[in-house]
Amino acid sequence: MRFVDIINKKREKQPLTTEEIQFWIDGYVKNEIPDYQVSALCMAIVLNGMEPREISDLTKAMMNSGEVMDLSSIEGIKIDKHSTGGVGDKTSLALMPMVSSCGAKVAKMSGRGLGHTGGTLDKLESIQNFNIFLDDDAFAKQVNDISIAIIGQTAQLVPADKKLYALRDVTGTVQSIPLIASSIMSKKLASGADTILLDVKYGDGAFMHTPEEAIELAKTMIQIGKDCGRDTRAMITDMNQPLGHAIGNALEVKEAIDTLKGQGPKDFTELCYTAGSIILQQAKIVNDEASAREMLEKAVEDGRALNKLKEMVQAQGGCVDQIDHPERLPQAKMVVEMRAHKNGYLDQVKALALGTLAMKLGAGRATKEDPINYAVGIVLNKKVGDSIQEGDIIAYVHTDEELSTEWIKEFYETFLILPEPVSREPLIYQIL
Amino acid sequence: MRFVDIINKKREKQPLTTEEIQFWIDGYVKNEIPDYQVSALCMAIVLNGMEPREISDLTKAMMNSGEVMDLSSIEGIKIDKHSTGGVGDKTSLALMPMVSSCGAKVAKMSGRGLGHTGGTLDKLESIQNFNIFLDDDAFAKQVNDISIAIIGQTAQLVPADKKLYALRDVTGTVQSIPLIASSIMSKKLASGADTILLDVKYGDGAFMHTPEEAIELAKTMIQIGKDCGRDTRAMITDMNQPLGHAIGNALEVKEAIDTLKGQGPKDFTELCYTAGSIILQQAKIVNDEASAREMLEKAVEDGRALNKLKEMVQAQGGCVDQIDHPERLPQAKMVVEMRAHKNGYLDQVKALALGTLAMKLGAGRATKEDPINYAVGIVLNKKVGDSIQEGDIIAYVHTDEELSTEWIKEFYETFLILPEPVSREPLIYQIL
Repeated sequence: MRFVDIINKKREKQPLTTEEIQFWIDGYVKNEIPDYQVSALCMAIVLNGMEPREISDLTKAMMNSGEVMDLSSIEGIKIDKHSTGGVGDKTSLALMPMVSSCGAKVAKMSGRGLGHTGGTLDKLESIQNFNIFLDDDAFAKQVNDISIAIIGQTAQLVPADKKLYALRDVTGTVQSIPLIASSIMSKKLASGADTILLDVKYGDGAFMHTPEEAIELAKTMIQIGKDCGRDTRAMITDMNQPLGHAIGNALEVKEAIDTLKGQGPKDFTELCYTAGSIILQQAKIVNDEASAREMLEKAVEDGRALNKLKEMVQAQGGCVDQIDHPERLPQAKMVVEMRAHKNGYLDQVKALALGTLAMKLGAGRATKEDPINYAVGIVLNKKVGDSIQEGDIIAYVHTDEELSTEWIKEFYETFLILPEPVSREPLIYQIL
Repeated sequence: MRFVDIINKKREKQPLTTEEIQFWIDGYVKNEIPDYQVSALCMAIVLNGMEPREISDLTKAMMNSGEVMDLSSIEGIKIDKHSTGGVGDKTSLALMPMVSSCGAKVAKMSGRGLGHTGGTLDKLESIQNFNIFLDDDAFAKQVNDISIAIIGQTAQLVPADKKLYALRDVTGTVQSIPLIASSIMSKKLASGADTILLDVKYGDGAFMHTPEEAIELAKTMIQIGKDCGRDTRAMITDMNQPLGHAIGNALEVKEAIDTLKGQGPKDFTELCYTAGSIILQQAKIVNDEASAREMLEKAVEDGRALNKLKEMVQAQGGCVDQIDHPERLPQAKMVVEMRAHKNGYLDQVKALALGTLAMKLGAGRATKEDPINYAVGIVLNKKVGDSIQEGDIIAYVHTDEELSTEWIKEFYETFLILPEPVSREPLIYQIL
């Protein structure tokens, strides 16, 4: 088999065989196929697409390029969820303890943030001494013992994706549903859970810009899950404005704690309950939406949900005191009140721009090697649709340094205030 | 400027600016832009195309990536021609002496053969001691003295094309009219002639498979020539069967000599006269086709055309005796007569397959490093449309070794004999 013939086939819009896809991924991981050939193939895939069978073959080949987790020593149905990423997305921090406290088995691997999007691992590490490195046995034992563990992906998981993503990033070949779907699903499948709930976001702060694109990506991933025998479902959710109020690692941990106490932002709470209801059905703990919601609300009310977070923090060596007293989480040196300059209604709070502004405060990474300041970030006091009076506080900026004129200028440009009332778009667009 | 943004633009089907194209070619030649980014861009160009302005910008950037010949020390209009390559294409060997003997200034750089196509340099080197390496001054002096010189391209000419072509060859990005046109024209423009005649071939043995593709490529190159102020014209010619009778280096030199004596194959002679008529008009030696033809025919009749070849061979150190006595050119150890197995009419003589069979005898190179056997090759005794009786000789195979059963089997598969008379397609499809 010659790799150039595989490139030629895709250039001519022909489907690749299972063997050809396997040859590609094997050869690339073994450094037998050079980057310059793979980037040409990726561009041909971006422009000519792939059939569902090819996408499943690619996902399986990638999944099998490294270690595949065997979670069979954990009893019961292991659930997993994945968000395509956004600004202020602390869902795993609240949702996983909630469903775990209702009996679901959470054996979850998470990632770090890059650019304007945050990552669950960084947020967890803002809790003092929280350990995200557990070996396979300790991981399985913890899930068997307390039904929940969230750890970092091991380097051995899907090496093909690491290599391919780095190449796609610099060759203009990121924007492709077959390549995005196989990248996400290969990692989810390799981490070994039985069920997967996908939160596919669209909008200004997300990979997919329209609901239609998000639906296409979600359907592609559901098909892959089906082909691999996993119960895979998806929510299509809005990421035109940040999720909840808080952006920044410790600030988001605090918001997750509030939510587990039943005192979280309305939109974020609703997202957790909706997602949790689907997960409890996937885990076969309940059979319908209404019972699931009731069970989740009760777990929050009676403190079991928050307690589950504390159990996990305890088990992974973290400082439980900071969960009981969130004011003891890392604190920025100052909190600046940002006030509205005019009356009206909030029409836009641009997620991408706010995520980037939070990154510039130190909350995120411009490159993979950058350090993170866990304390800093932005907490919104107003959301899209709210009425605004001149002088109202629209947000609190937690920062270690004086804000520059440039930063403040960019900050105000992310808020669009119109004179007439504006409609609120629903957070959850569709469930698949 | 970031190269990935340039790739993204082309992926989104947007035209690249002059500066972006310059940045690409400059950075690639200086090894500042890696192969894996350039191959992704090339694939995007293959699939999304380029506008005429972009193609001219690319051609100019490539032309200026190395030495650009200055032929101003040669008096008069310098003419050049280029064939997109085929099987049995010895046109330059006969045509250049013909037009030179009529007063045109021929300062020509040629290339070597690869795969099933031959190269003018290899054919010239089958003449003992013929020197294709002249420095710029010696080259200009020879053209001023005797109106003709054919030499090899210097390594300094269009380095961008050498690098780009090697990459395209292994990344499935050869088949693109913008990339093929800019590759050919950058070299033609850098070699400095005032006028260019293109012989764009289509068919089984050519890059372009249909007349329509060949016309599109020709029009693209004519537009580039126009944008660069060169009189550029094109012939669209058939390469479904080999040109003339001979395939193989010394055998083609002999056929060129025959043609210069007025004893060449009908199709090849016609091609030379048609091309010569266009060139004499480009050189402003005559104003119309009829006068041009008359002049060329006269030069052949009175021996001036053949004499011009001998002058060139003499000037470049070659053995003139071999031109006077072509039987003294390299001779194969044996000549095998290949006879028809049935009666009928010759419908196909597949050029690609015959070129490959000649290469296997040793007449061509599978890789750039392979040596060449100048003596061996195939001489057709029948062409498409001829009637055939069982036992007729259809070709003579000049070989140094016994033909294998496999080779003979493949040889007969290249000839398709049908029971009913078949029509001859014209060799020259169109003139642009």
